[in-house]
Amino acid sequence: MLAEIRQQPRALEHTLAAAAPAVAALRRTLEKRRPRLIVLAARGTSDNAALFGRYLIEITTGIPVSLAAPSITTLYRAQLDYRDTLVVALSQSGESTDTNLVLEQARKRGALTLGITNERASTLAKLADHAFLVRAGAERSVAATKTYTGQLLLLYLLASILGGSVRTGDLASLPAAVEAALRLEPQIAALSERYRFMRQTVVVGRGLNYANAFEFSLKLMETCYVVAERFSSADLLHGPIALVERGFPVFAFAPADATWVSIREALGKLAKVGAEIVAITDSGNRQVERCVTRVIRLPRKLKEALTPIPYIVPAQLFAAYLAVDKGLDPDRPRTLHKVTANL
Amino acid sequence: MLAEIRQQPRALEHTLAAAAPAVAALRRTLEKRRPRLIVLAARGTSDNAALFGRYLIEITTGIPVSLAAPSITTLYRAQLDYRDTLVVALSQSGESTDTNLVLEQARKRGALTLGITNERASTLAKLADHAFLVRAGAERSVAATKTYTGQLLLLYLLASILGGSVRTGDLASLPAAVEAALRLEPQIAALSERYRFMRQTVVVGRGLNYANAFEFSLKLMETCYVVAERFSSADLLHGPIALVERGFPVFAFAPADATWVSIREALGKLAKVGAEIVAITDSGNRQVERCVTRVIRLPRKLKEALTPIPYIVPAQLFAAYLAVDKGLDPDRPRTLHKVTANL
Repeated sequence: MLAEIRQQPRALEHTLAAAAPAVAALRRTLEKRRPRLIVLAARGTSDNAALFGRYLIEITTGIPVSLAAPSITTLYRAQLDYRDTLVVALSQSGESTDTNLVLEQARKRGALTLGITNERASTLAKLADHAFLVRAGAERSVAATKTYTGQLLLLYLLASILGGSVRTGDLASLPAAVEAALRLEPQIAALSERYRFMRQTVVVGRGLNYANAFEFSLKLMETCYVVAERFSSADLLHGPIALVERGFPVFAFAPADATWVSIREALGKLAKVGAEIVAITDSGNRQVERCVTRVIRLPRKLKEALTPIPYIVPAQLFAAYLAVDKGLDPDRPRTLHKVTANL
Repeated sequence: MLAEIRQQPRALEHTLAAAAPAVAALRRTLEKRRPRLIVLAARGTSDNAALFGRYLIEITTGIPVSLAAPSITTLYRAQLDYRDTLVVALSQSGESTDTNLVLEQARKRGALTLGITNERASTLAKLADHAFLVRAGAERSVAATKTYTGQLLLLYLLASILGGSVRTGDLASLPAAVEAALRLEPQIAALSERYRFMRQTVVVGRGLNYANAFEFSLKLMETCYVVAERFSSADLLHGPIALVERGFPVFAFAPADATWVSIREALGKLAKVGAEIVAITDSGNRQVERCVTRVIRLPRKLKEALTPIPYIVPAQLFAAYLAVDKGLDPDRPRTLHKVTANL
């Protein structure tokens, strides 16, 4: 897991460099067929990437996005009206049976389809009209890391093709931003020890970093067996904050700009009840110290739109080190195998 | 909370009996303007009702549904393309600022709008083109119960208007099904004591009962301060199952029919790692005992499509009794107030 976390700058560079032909092909198709709706279908870490894609695409293009509920197709056998719809399935292996079935049915019902996967020869890559490949090399750890950031990068390209204001130069800066985040490794290795006996936590994000709250909590569940909740700062205040008592650990993604006013309100209320708060932020947000216990601060100032990829890196490192602190092997979580096929 | 749980049969009867004029009005509008997309916007318990609505509408009508991400409108100020879209906001009070803003913006952008609320004179009821009222009387407990089941009932009516195969006679049977579920109260009062020292749990549902997993876990978080995860049986197997160890408590909604094959697979894997499983089911599912520790069984056999309202009732009772077992007042969770207005 640690080795794969460290490979991310190279994986992102390769993914970006090799994407041009697939991007051009999809762009040509979409010029003739602009979708009215985007549906994203995935499971696990890929579903967290899809959640990011939902925010990014709606924010930058105004096209409505829905996250597929696979059981509606696989168990209830409903026939959804997918005219003028782009259906995107995301899967590291490309062999997730239920998301593949969603994509296959959607294609039969008239949808344009795109697969985002690590595996060029996978069922998904063959089923879909178009394929975007994550060029991260084989991912051996059960806990996905480099394929998550690769999927996020490809979703920026998808938003750009759909007319979103995503600048290519900005994307080219992401591998260096991840490199900078990786330099936090010694600091995070030291910090994680404090949480050796943490059994439960809440992870908070909002907007473009809401997906990172899901992804960080999934890593904590899979590799550290911590019962890790995840909420938007708004949803947290609508009920779940009641479970937070003095000393309860909370992790928050806290970039400056659009979402800060909401995150700040939640952190203020959490601080008032005595929560222990760890904030992940960058040098662009100077206000965060006032209400938190520990800060993980990326050295570079980042535009909020570009925070999701570099911000997940310290969270991945934290989960990998905390697992070791707890005497666990983060590469081999109990009960799990790498490919999960489901009804 | 307990008093309001017990009021549900009457509240459902009133809601159904009084709905006809609003249903007829919306039906007339939709005859001229059939939507291509439904967007549901809500927070907290109402958002859990929206999650049910998403499954019900897609399964019964084939019209795609998206659950709104309010921050896209409120914080990023994105302009979504809501032509041919029905936007539905759900709010007990009708005063949730962010969902009201989503609805208001959508209306400006050409969407048809519907508000589902307890309060006839609320901002939401005035903002929306159409309003469906939950006739449950005032809800004084912070933990919503009777407004949740009222919202579910109105979502069945919405699905029916949109062409879904929902039978009016079936809906009329729901108050009696809830009455039957309420007769489990002494059994649940006795059962809850076993969980006096439970600090964390996972609630599992799938399909039409996926929303109930969210709602039960929210009740456990708000009133019992239990860190309560919620997953579909498929998502659980994609990672989070790693955190389940011997004796870990899991609650599952386990009706017969469409979702049973998936729930059974998850229960089998959970039993293998030694989880303590409590299943909520009805007399139609005779297979559930084999892999669970305790069964909460509704006496009547129910069609799977009609399980969500009666199935949440024992879960509400369980949360109310467990709070008391833990020495807490379920009507006054710490840190919370009844109306939460958010950015």
